[in-house]
Amino acid sequence: MLRNIVNRIHGSGFRFASSDSKFAAAQANLKKLQEAPDNSTKLKLYALFKQATAGDVSGSAPSRLNFVERAKYDAWANFKGLTAADAQEKYAKLVDELLGEEAKDAAAATPNSSGKTIPGLSITNENHIYKITLNRPKKFNAITWEMYDGLVDSLKEADADPSVKLVVITGAGDYYCSGNDLGNFSKIAEVGKEKLAEHAGGVFDRFVKAFIDFEKPLIFAVNGPAVGIAVTLLPLANLVYASDSATFHTPFVTLGQSAEGTSTYNFPRLMGSLKASEVLIFGRKLTAEEAYERNLVNEVIPKASFAAEVDKRIAQFAKLPPQALKINKNIVRDVDREALHKVNEREVKVLMNRWLSKECEQALTAFMTRKK
Amino acid sequence: MLRNIVNRIHGSGFRFASSDSKFAAAQANLKKLQEAPDNSTKLKLYALFKQATAGDVSGSAPSRLNFVERAKYDAWANFKGLTAADAQEKYAKLVDELLGEEAKDAAAATPNSSGKTIPGLSITNENHIYKITLNRPKKFNAITWEMYDGLVDSLKEADADPSVKLVVITGAGDYYCSGNDLGNFSKIAEVGKEKLAEHAGGVFDRFVKAFIDFEKPLIFAVNGPAVGIAVTLLPLANLVYASDSATFHTPFVTLGQSAEGTSTYNFPRLMGSLKASEVLIFGRKLTAEEAYERNLVNEVIPKASFAAEVDKRIAQFAKLPPQALKINKNIVRDVDREALHKVNEREVKVLMNRWLSKECEQALTAFMTRKK
Amino acid sequence: MLRNIVNRIHGSGFRFASSDSKFAAAQANLKKLQEAPDNSTKLKLYALFKQATAGDVSGSAPSRLNFVERAKYDAWANFKGLTAADAQEKYAKLVDELLGEEAKDAAAATPNSSGKTIPGLSITNENHIYKITLNRPKKFNAITWEMYDGLVDSLKEADADPSVKLVVITGAGDYYCSGNDLGNFSKIAEVGKEKLAEHAGGVFDRFVKAFIDFEKPLIFAVNGPAVGIAVTLLPLANLVYASDSATFHTPFVTLGQSAEGTSTYNFPRLMGSLKASEVLIFGRKLTAEEAYERNLVNEVIPKASFAAEVDKRIAQFAKLPPQALKINKNIVRDVDREALHKVNEREVKVLMNRWLSKECEQALTAFMTRKK
Repeated sequence: MLRNIVNRIHGSGFRFASSDSKFAAAQANLKKLQEAPDNSTKLKLYALFKQATAGDVSGSAPSRLNFVERAKYDAWANFKGLTAADAQEKYAKLVDELLGEEAKDAAAATPNSSGKTIPGLSITNENHIYKITLNRPKKFNAITWEMYDGLVDSLKEADADPSVKLVVITGAGDYYCSGNDLGNFSKIAEVGKEKLAEHAGGVFDRFVKAFIDFEKPLIFAVNGPAVGIAVTLLPLANLVYASDSATFHTPFVTLGQSAEGTSTYNFPRLMGSLKASEVLIFGRKLTAEEAYERNLVNEVIPKASFAAEVDKRIAQFAKLPPQALKINKNIVRDVDREALHKVNEREVKVLMNRWLSKECEQALTAFMTRKK
Repeated sequence: MLRNIVNRIHGSGFRFASSDSKFAAAQANLKKLQEAPDNSTKLKLYALFKQATAGDVSGSAPSRLNFVERAKYDAWANFKGLTAADAQEKYAKLVDELLGEEAKDAAAATPNSSGKTIPGLSITNENHIYKITLNRPKKFNAITWEMYDGLVDSLKEADADPSVKLVVITGAGDYYCSGNDLGNFSKIAEVGKEKLAEHAGGVFDRFVKAFIDFEKPLIFAVNGPAVGIAVTLLPLANLVYASDSATFHTPFVTLGQSAEGTSTYNFPRLMGSLKASEVLIFGRKLTAEEAYERNLVNEVIPKASFAAEVDKRIAQFAKLPPQALKINKNIVRDVDREALHKVNEREVKVLMNRWLSKECEQALTAFMTRKK
Repeated sequence: MLRNIVNRIHGSGFRFASSDSKFAAAQANLKKLQEAPDNSTKLKLYALFKQATAGDVSGSAPSRLNFVERAKYDAWANFKGLTAADAQEKYAKLVDELLGEEAKDAAAATPNSSGKTIPGLSITNENHIYKITLNRPKKFNAITWEMYDGLVDSLKEADADPSVKLVVITGAGDYYCSGNDLGNFSKIAEVGKEKLAEHAGGVFDRFVKAFIDFEKPLIFAVNGPAVGIAVTLLPLANLVYASDSATFHTPFVTLGQSAEGTSTYNFPRLMGSLKASEVLIFGRKLTAEEAYERNLVNEVIPKASFAAEVDKRIAQFAKLPPQALKINKNIVRDVDREALHKVNEREVKVLMNRWLSKECEQALTAFMTRKK
């Protein structure tokens, strides 16, 4: 598989260059990555490798309709004029960074109470509070396939543990969560669009279902910016606290995708259909204060005291009688449960079609190769 | 038919007075009107004619229960003391004004892209934006039977045209739209209450259905005061911009009528059932700011820059991928589509009964003869 | 039955003490109460009686798991050190107060228009306005079994009276309504938990149904603090006015109970599911201003002018055409009527189970014996 990653990055005719030992080592180290880098990183690796081994890009740019070739061409062109030595240097440094991040991520991953470690999630369970921290701060806590399934398992564990009264989900670092990790789609060349869309649809479906049917009160502590499914899921909780540094962004249309997480049902019911459309269709990014006004957030708390203030409130809630907590949570959910499941199914079906569309491919390529 | 209008205005025993040639000409010109004047204008014409030909009203006022005769009596009494010459002069001037307005309205009507002209609507279709302007500013853009059906046809045209990404509806002049043109009920004496109610019910039903099922994002640009169905329709759009000169008024109960446009479903879902009842049952008129707070409006924009600011925002939206726009619009609508159709049917049925009620007749007469 | 009350208060081995005639008279007078005192008063009577007849409590406190005995022990211990004479004095004074309150309540009870008097309710019917005042100010207008059924009958009477256009419900004194009178559960020892829960379930079910199906516009004038079912019912009205002294509190979870009054349906539709959960699950008490922001209140009015301002507004509404008022009220209600009945049934079933739970028993005992 890692051979595949390297091939996909450098092209199938790829052979290690042997002249510079540091450069060669970097190429070898790239194989040690557990996880494929995201697409923009892969393009950068490709471009630096080409610049280091073949110099400036030549020929005219491929048509914009030929997304992938054009993206590679543009990435290469970004380094025009860079010497081979400098390109090798940058390449080696980038590979080192990627390996360093993975090592940190692995160290940060902590076992859940049944002793299972889920990469990207840190879990604690004490004083009746089961706390899940999205813990890939270098990737803005983007959600990998493993994290989706890990969250589903964690919710089940919290439901089954009679000592747990409440579940809290938050993010490590300055970001809350950048949503679906676009790296999840990196195997597209390997397995094919259709298979990948089917896999992704299944993951999303299970994931959202787990939140609809979770039986205990759930609290999201949004410590910073939230994107995509990290935003659309919020109304499935019972309380949402937001740091004043949080923003809420659902750029589905820009990315050629479609709204999920039961947001097509929940958002109009939180803020009315017009303000929901503004967010879900026209992609308006909300500040924490705007999210409060639109009933997507219960309270906005200054960033400096966010974690402490949230902990204080939750400690109070954890004193409440557990059966009454659970029963009141479910009597409210029962009103909409059936409708939520129906909506989730419809949203996943539409989203799977979107992933196969030309618009989505185009939009993702444009996003990937955007000037940052 | 125009003979009928004139008869209804002046009474069936009506004959032209021949003494004053200008007055006689005015009476003849009245027949040239394409469209019957509204009820209050008809009453004024009747009153001036009587004052000009028979002098001050005499006898005691008919009972208030005898709505029509009392309205005519009161209108005539308004001109007590006016000389015959002055009454003739005023009559002639009023007829001239009516003819002048019709000529202007005809000139303002522009063909839609299939080359069809709909009186009262101006349509443009460029840069992916299909823009419909309600264009009867002298009548505060009140909606005639022709305009209802014209709007239905326009929405179909916009849906069928692959170059169209968005539809925008706005009003010409200072008013956005005064709602259903009460002149639509002027043929009541001719065709009978029951037939008219049935016709009106059919028009309303088709009209609201067209908005429920319109497939592309729809934007209302409310440039000034909105009344009745021009207000209740708003939540069927995806964005509503309001000038700070806009107001929102649904005086259904005062007029003996009932809420339509799927407002009985949409308004409680925008602003909660209590604030919705305040508007729909107790007829509270909202300012633009209040409409924003109640989720009926996405943004309030100063009147002076309203059109320019709206155009700027819409031009940005028109760059978004068309399939994603359409799909996200419909995935949100699909959640409520079935319920909306059911509600529309129920509302139209109730409204048709209202139109046949004594309360409605009384209320419309009171409205028509009110001091302005 | 009153023998039962006295037995429950003083223990079944109770005999009148004969030494002090005022104390003896007080014990005899206690039998004259029409209605059992609430639980905290009963505990106080028990404690003073014990202190007056047996002196300081002795022995160690019963386990906290033995709720009732512990509550009695703690109540008795509160008066440690009080002389027998002082305890007798306090006991006699408390009985006098209870009798005095009942006499006042009886005087305040006024017959409804069909001549029936409902203890705890005052009813007027004039100028098209049927006004119900919750009138047990000494008990913060807590709702007794009799008042629940009296309210149901009153709504039926108002619906049947063609002169009535609107119904207004308000409270006497500084409180609006403290919700379900916990004294309703005082017969628990007599009839058993199961029978009592069944009776209470039936009362609640009929009560909420009557509000769902009431056919004319309904206005709540919340003149002060509201608790429990007095809060959850509000969205079933068409307008809610609140004094700026009003608060809104639904401590269901703290009391081991569950949300009722169709609040699990209506609250998420007023303020979104997150802010509804904050109120219904986590028991957040709202100020009048917060209730306005969450669409639970239409207007906040200063306490000093509250009654006068509400009367002024309602007098205007009473001029509107009655059929249009009724028809528009029902066309809005019809959208949710079926769902509301279904939700009410579910909520009553869950609540009946809650009343039988250990958590509820524990929570009520803790509430009853709390330091005030």
